[in-house]
Amino acid sequence: MKKVIKNGTIVTATDTYQADLLIDNGVINQIGKHLPLDDAEIIDAKGCYVFPGGIDPHTHLEMPFGGTVTKDDFETGTIAAAFGGTTSVIDFCLTNKGETLKSAIETWHAKSKHKAVIDYGFHLQIVEMNDDVLHELPKVIEQEGITSFKVFMAYKNVLQADDETLFRTLISAKELGALVMVHAENGDVIDYLVKKALKQGNTDPIFHALTRPSEVEGEATGRAAILTGLANSQLYVVHVSCADAARKIAEARNNGIDIWGETCPQYLVLDQSYLEKPNFEGAKFVWSPPLREKWNQDVLWNALKTGQLQTVGSDQCSFDFNGQKDLGKGNFSKIPNGGPIIEDRVSILFSEGVKKGRITLNQFVDLISTRAAKLFGLYPRKGTIAVGVDADIVIFDPTVVRTISVETHHMAVDYNPFEGIKVTGEPISVLSRGEFVIRDKKFVGQLGAGQYLKRGKYGASDHSGTTNLV
Amino acid sequence: MKKVIKNGTIVTATDTYQADLLIDNGVINQIGKHLPLDDAEIIDAKGCYVFPGGIDPHTHLEMPFGGTVTKDDFETGTIAAAFGGTTSVIDFCLTNKGETLKSAIETWHAKSKHKAVIDYGFHLQIVEMNDDVLHELPKVIEQEGITSFKVFMAYKNVLQADDETLFRTLISAKELGALVMVHAENGDVIDYLVKKALKQGNTDPIFHALTRPSEVEGEATGRAAILTGLANSQLYVVHVSCADAARKIAEARNNGIDIWGETCPQYLVLDQSYLEKPNFEGAKFVWSPPLREKWNQDVLWNALKTGQLQTVGSDQCSFDFNGQKDLGKGNFSKIPNGGPIIEDRVSILFSEGVKKGRITLNQFVDLISTRAAKLFGLYPRKGTIAVGVDADIVIFDPTVVRTISVETHHMAVDYNPFEGIKVTGEPISVLSRGEFVIRDKKFVGQLGAGQYLKRGKYGASDHSGTTNLV
Amino acid sequence: MKKVIKNGTIVTATDTYQADLLIDNGVINQIGKHLPLDDAEIIDAKGCYVFPGGIDPHTHLEMPFGGTVTKDDFETGTIAAAFGGTTSVIDFCLTNKGETLKSAIETWHAKSKHKAVIDYGFHLQIVEMNDDVLHELPKVIEQEGITSFKVFMAYKNVLQADDETLFRTLISAKELGALVMVHAENGDVIDYLVKKALKQGNTDPIFHALTRPSEVEGEATGRAAILTGLANSQLYVVHVSCADAARKIAEARNNGIDIWGETCPQYLVLDQSYLEKPNFEGAKFVWSPPLREKWNQDVLWNALKTGQLQTVGSDQCSFDFNGQKDLGKGNFSKIPNGGPIIEDRVSILFSEGVKKGRITLNQFVDLISTRAAKLFGLYPRKGTIAVGVDADIVIFDPTVVRTISVETHHMAVDYNPFEGIKVTGEPISVLSRGEFVIRDKKFVGQLGAGQYLKRGKYGASDHSGTTNLV
Amino acid sequence: MKKVIKNGTIVTATDTYQADLLIDNGVINQIGKHLPLDDAEIIDAKGCYVFPGGIDPHTHLEMPFGGTVTKDDFETGTIAAAFGGTTSVIDFCLTNKGETLKSAIETWHAKSKHKAVIDYGFHLQIVEMNDDVLHELPKVIEQEGITSFKVFMAYKNVLQADDETLFRTLISAKELGALVMVHAENGDVIDYLVKKALKQGNTDPIFHALTRPSEVEGEATGRAAILTGLANSQLYVVHVSCADAARKIAEARNNGIDIWGETCPQYLVLDQSYLEKPNFEGAKFVWSPPLREKWNQDVLWNALKTGQLQTVGSDQCSFDFNGQKDLGKGNFSKIPNGGPIIEDRVSILFSEGVKKGRITLNQFVDLISTRAAKLFGLYPRKGTIAVGVDADIVIFDPTVVRTISVETHHMAVDYNPFEGIKVTGEPISVLSRGEFVIRDKKFVGQLGAGQYLKRGKYGASDHSGTTNLV
Repeated sequence: MKKVIKNGTIVTATDTYQADLLIDNGVINQIGKHLPLDDAEIIDAKGCYVFPGGIDPHTHLEMPFGGTVTKDDFETGTIAAAFGGTTSVIDFCLTNKGETLKSAIETWHAKSKHKAVIDYGFHLQIVEMNDDVLHELPKVIEQEGITSFKVFMAYKNVLQADDETLFRTLISAKELGALVMVHAENGDVIDYLVKKALKQGNTDPIFHALTRPSEVEGEATGRAAILTGLANSQLYVVHVSCADAARKIAEARNNGIDIWGETCPQYLVLDQSYLEKPNFEGAKFVWSPPLREKWNQDVLWNALKTGQLQTVGSDQCSFDFNGQKDLGKGNFSKIPNGGPIIEDRVSILFSEGVKKGRITLNQFVDLISTRAAKLFGLYPRKGTIAVGVDADIVIFDPTVVRTISVETHHMAVDYNPFEGIKVTGEPISVLSRGEFVIRDKKFVGQLGAGQYLKRGKYGASDHSGTTNLV
Repeated sequence: MKKVIKNGTIVTATDTYQADLLIDNGVINQIGKHLPLDDAEIIDAKGCYVFPGGIDPHTHLEMPFGGTVTKDDFETGTIAAAFGGTTSVIDFCLTNKGETLKSAIETWHAKSKHKAVIDYGFHLQIVEMNDDVLHELPKVIEQEGITSFKVFMAYKNVLQADDETLFRTLISAKELGALVMVHAENGDVIDYLVKKALKQGNTDPIFHALTRPSEVEGEATGRAAILTGLANSQLYVVHVSCADAARKIAEARNNGIDIWGETCPQYLVLDQSYLEKPNFEGAKFVWSPPLREKWNQDVLWNALKTGQLQTVGSDQCSFDFNGQKDLGKGNFSKIPNGGPIIEDRVSILFSEGVKKGRITLNQFVDLISTRAAKLFGLYPRKGTIAVGVDADIVIFDPTVVRTISVETHHMAVDYNPFEGIKVTGEPISVLSRGEFVIRDKKFVGQLGAGQYLKRGKYGASDHSGTTNLV
Repeated sequence: MKKVIKNGTIVTATDTYQADLLIDNGVINQIGKHLPLDDAEIIDAKGCYVFPGGIDPHTHLEMPFGGTVTKDDFETGTIAAAFGGTTSVIDFCLTNKGETLKSAIETWHAKSKHKAVIDYGFHLQIVEMNDDVLHELPKVIEQEGITSFKVFMAYKNVLQADDETLFRTLISAKELGALVMVHAENGDVIDYLVKKALKQGNTDPIFHALTRPSEVEGEATGRAAILTGLANSQLYVVHVSCADAARKIAEARNNGIDIWGETCPQYLVLDQSYLEKPNFEGAKFVWSPPLREKWNQDVLWNALKTGQLQTVGSDQCSFDFNGQKDLGKGNFSKIPNGGPIIEDRVSILFSEGVKKGRITLNQFVDLISTRAAKLFGLYPRKGTIAVGVDADIVIFDPTVVRTISVETHHMAVDYNPFEGIKVTGEPISVLSRGEFVIRDKKFVGQLGAGQYLKRGKYGASDHSGTTNLV
Repeated sequence: MKKVIKNGTIVTATDTYQADLLIDNGVINQIGKHLPLDDAEIIDAKGCYVFPGGIDPHTHLEMPFGGTVTKDDFETGTIAAAFGGTTSVIDFCLTNKGETLKSAIETWHAKSKHKAVIDYGFHLQIVEMNDDVLHELPKVIEQEGITSFKVFMAYKNVLQADDETLFRTLISAKELGALVMVHAENGDVIDYLVKKALKQGNTDPIFHALTRPSEVEGEATGRAAILTGLANSQLYVVHVSCADAARKIAEARNNGIDIWGETCPQYLVLDQSYLEKPNFEGAKFVWSPPLREKWNQDVLWNALKTGQLQTVGSDQCSFDFNGQKDLGKGNFSKIPNGGPIIEDRVSILFSEGVKKGRITLNQFVDLISTRAAKLFGLYPRKGTIAVGVDADIVIFDPTVVRTISVETHHMAVDYNPFEGIKVTGEPISVLSRGEFVIRDKKFVGQLGAGQYLKRGKYGASDHSGTTNLV
């Protein structure tokens, strides 16, 4: 059945205007005033923004890590995402040395297929680069539509790849039309500092931050940028946490290197002092890279405003405080890294960004949806409000004030790092391909309704649009 | 009568998609597939892009300069603009010391009112800042909707304002909601170098470039940026010509200063060697700032791509080669500065930018239209394709190849600086508020049909959209 | 009579070693162990450093300023200098528009000739640049040996020169072999901020600092550097007070511009908070540029250490607190700018620099003496301990701890800005051309014994040494 | 027997003056005019400079490399050094994984002890950092006086250490008072590019340069600098070849990091085009890092002039063209890296630097001798002309013009990379601890006369001089 969203204010990465939307067959069909309402369900969006569903380019659902597994899986994770205004996620498919890429991808399909309530895609981790991997990569792109590869410069002896692997991945990605993603921290230095801290009896959560100083992130970011330039390739730096790294990205872009940067809500709102909370509560705030000194937030916001950082991902990677985070009691290096962010990503950015005048409303849409769609080959199917696009839509009341809390959130974990923070603005209803997933703040979706997203090659969607005129 | 533009590919600063457009009462009313065609004129845009009319934020029509007057006035200038795909211009209203601002503005209204075939607005030059000027400024904004003030750092003893004037203008602009525009070259140094060159008998056009080295532009740009930061104000640097200046803008933006930069087609395509053409032909290529060494072009293109420069204006300021430019025979400093660019601005940027892969199609729309609309208070009335927006529309065939030439252009001058350059893409038809100005490459508009544009305050349109929800 | 300084540790800008010195006819004649002592007066320097007398390249003695005159003249000023270990000063000869340079220089000779107890030279201020001045400059260099010209970018409507004057001075200096010195602050911005502050009733001394923010110093420094590069000339930036300016100098030097920077003890030790002292005491700490936020000190020390700043001058410019500084009660802009530093310059740099490990002992000698001698054409006559050099020598006990105080200082003013600061190290005896001026901490010199110093051209002394072998 | 060097012009890193020198017991005893000549041998230095013997901080004598051994050993190498005006070398003692440091050092003593004609010391390579190495290091410093450790960031799978090794070395060095030296190139990237080039059949010498682009040197230099800052340690970057690396060093120094840079004559005079010489002659010019595009030379010279690079070493590492370099015919990666520079280092720097006005005469002395003495713990025993210092002296005629050639050089190899270059200035006589090694351009020294130099800790000699007054 057709649907018409009436009386809302439509917002895209460029435009803000009042019009109604006609959805037909899961796709946006008409935009205008006085649309024909016959045989269409009418949805009133009066007083609300109507913008494209968020695309979260950085999630870790049901991911094994340090002997445990992230709490939110594709069921709870995507439900929470939908509540928060996100209608697509791109999750990281981890690989193991020796395993085929195909096998790893099948594992990830098995995790997601029957659970996801919104659409989803995969990035592929590259842990080593050899002839087998090189041979499989074209198939990964053509058959699976996986067009982004992740390399870790940290987690020594676990996930860390050496510079040769990063460089070869960059070169392959250029040839194949994929985007390389990098976790940029110098793992060698961190490994030494962690061992030294533990040896000195410095075991509290705050030492997680102190053993990963911002210089190691700046260094690795700068190194990855130079390698990208040498390979004439393209790079996306995930979870930029600090001025050191943001400045390296800006410098590289000014030098003509094709590099992009993502930050996360936690780095924009929280800071290093949270790791000093008593009773081991600091463990709730353990991310890698770690939360930074507060002044870095201004630099990150300015980088978003001026376009030197381009996306905001969640780095969703949730662990219970009781039973998981506490694995690190007495040894901060055993605290599982990460936290539950998927649900509040959109709200935090709206409330702290748009409402506080740090970014415009249109930049907000670009940051939480459109830019990710373009970078990761989902555009123009996803990421905007335009004729012919999937009706992934958020109806968002920008006036509601609510307090973020574990009491009310929909993620599976037992705490929320933004607990007690008041935000203005809330998704009222959320549609995926024209069907309600959230309606009037209630979940009405279906497990397994989410479709797997085969994604286009890097650059293709940004340049050609729906036709091949250019 | 209603119009429907069918079968085209709509392009905005963000989106590219196939849909039809319904225009009613001069405004875009519906966008969609299968729009009702009853009682509407059908316009077929098959194979064409349909994008918002260009907004040229930098023109000098019928402007007195150095004892002569620019050749193109609001008649020939706006007709040529329309042929080139531009549907709004913002022209610089010059003032004289002692004259009231009101009087200067009236002079400009008189020049434009009965001639303009497309809509137009004015920027206001500030030559000195005193109590009288301070007193008039609020009225200029409220009554005339002039929300941008221009200050010259060059043209010593003529247009040049001192740093105090610039600083006070920045402070007033912040208070009043206006954007300061600056011509950034160090006029003192230039004045000395010009006199010295002439004394040494160096009178050819090339000495125009050699006496205005890029360092003086970089210096003035950096100075203006620092003053903007101190005033906590906003700045728009016109006609950025070189790496030196572009880098200063990037640096300031990274430091949180609210500064924007415009470049022009001539700096992207032509270079300093043109000033060395024999038989005084170099005079055709005399702009201030001057054309630069060719390598600067890459830096400017990259700055457009990464968002460190945000607009492309024409700096239309045309003089005949015979009878005007030749005032400078035997003395380069007497050559009227400027050239005819208004007609080819959009085509050059499409052909050299989009077709050559330097910028995306959506960036192109932003650079020639949307960003200027937002910066100068024309958005959302102008600058995009969306419901409720003025139907200022270009139907653009991206496949036509044509050669730019004085033989075929519509400007009043006797040469074209891009003579012989082949460009791909051409506007077929152009509408202003729903009425054809150009139809099938023929002018069908009316003198005086263009409306004067009262513009909104700086920042207002970018943040609020059509409603005050945020 | 010959003198032998025995048992001391000789220190130069490069070397530290134990040896005796034989002085004959006012000049260092031999350096070695077991020198012949016959018919020589023996001076025991056991436990002491023996280094070249300080050269203070920046003093204002008996200078008119804001309706009053600096308290210390060439008598009290040079006596205090000698007590502090300084044996040469270069004072600024001010000029007035319309007056001949010759006349201005004669005025300065009259002030100094019969009073100075140590040798002295003059810099020449350039307030405007016209044909008369251009005509006189070569004579100033040849006849007076004045090879450094000072231009002010601040003090609007009083001392401030425009960019054309600065640029022309740079060009002339290059031709003539002189060094241009610049007071780098943007006077236009300051003038506006001062008027605005006063209008708002902000009259306390702290507003002196708040109306001259570090950005205006950084801006002017960067501008002067770019003009120097364009003129292919040489520049010396006086009294660098902040990171903003120091970084501009470093950047210019890295770009191949011949630029040098001087800082002063007050910027290394005191900070902006001193201007907030109650009971108008803040007025004691009013310099231009003003004292800065404390963190700038680290940047300045590092710039001295790495050679990005090269000299430490005093900017001696003393006014009594009672009767002079209090002209500014109720209006900070009337507070005479400057303070008494000439006496403690060397001690502060030794104690805070060498003793605290921020610079080496040899760098200390370079900073307080050798580099100034080379830059200002006094080398090799002055500025080092070597055979053939004037016996301007300080015998310095590096172990004495004393407290700086107006009670014990020898300057004519009624306060000391370093009051209460403990320093380690003190000059015991000071010789000028082989004659004691200070002996065992007592003044034993003679008024008028100081000689006027005709100085060599820029670059000459640094390159050729005593012979023309190269 | 005593010696007196008469009539020369003494030059130190600071001073240039005419005086005679009395040498007694191998040490400089007096400096002055009219020194007592009784029972002293008189050496006439009329028309000559008399400066401290050069200290070459970077040599590889009799070093195994790539299956062969450098041609010059401690006999031919030190004789050639002496001819060139160098009186001390510090050679790199290589270590092997598993071998004790003690054993490696003994190997180097065995190579040098009976051959060296001038004094020599050792740097120690650190190939891995483990408990055994950590345990031995204090002994290396205390017993052997080896206070500098070298780490390679290039030569993957051969010499290359990982970042953890570099970081731990930096931390140990700080604790122990040693200086870390680094070969800064990203070996991972180079390894990939080399393999790729070879696979593509690109085997000529020029591909040595093309597979080691300047970005990989800039990257590694920046990385090492950041690690140094994090370790709060000290670093010396050897053989800086390009602007990319020089700028990283300048930036780090400005940020307060204790980092020093060395360049080499080959990078100042030769350029990448030499690798394209026909008939495999390019192989003569294969260094790592490689020769760069010519414009880099200006940046390097300016860095020397402004103190952003502080020393000039030879990186002496000589191989015959016939029989050694030709191992790389058909495979550039097999060409032994390095060349014969030890003999011409001083002359090149004097002729190209001082005579061409790029550096001063005093800077020249600092660059070829004094600064290395201070950085590597040889000062004040070596590195200057002052009382009490070893009489390592060069008598240098600055007017002789000669042509560098394999025909006349004293190194053991069959070519000279500076063949045909005319230099002005030549050492006439050279003394080591008061004894002639070269006299009137003839070798008069003795094998084994050179003494092994136990060196002081980092920083010690620069700060304290001969006494402990400070």
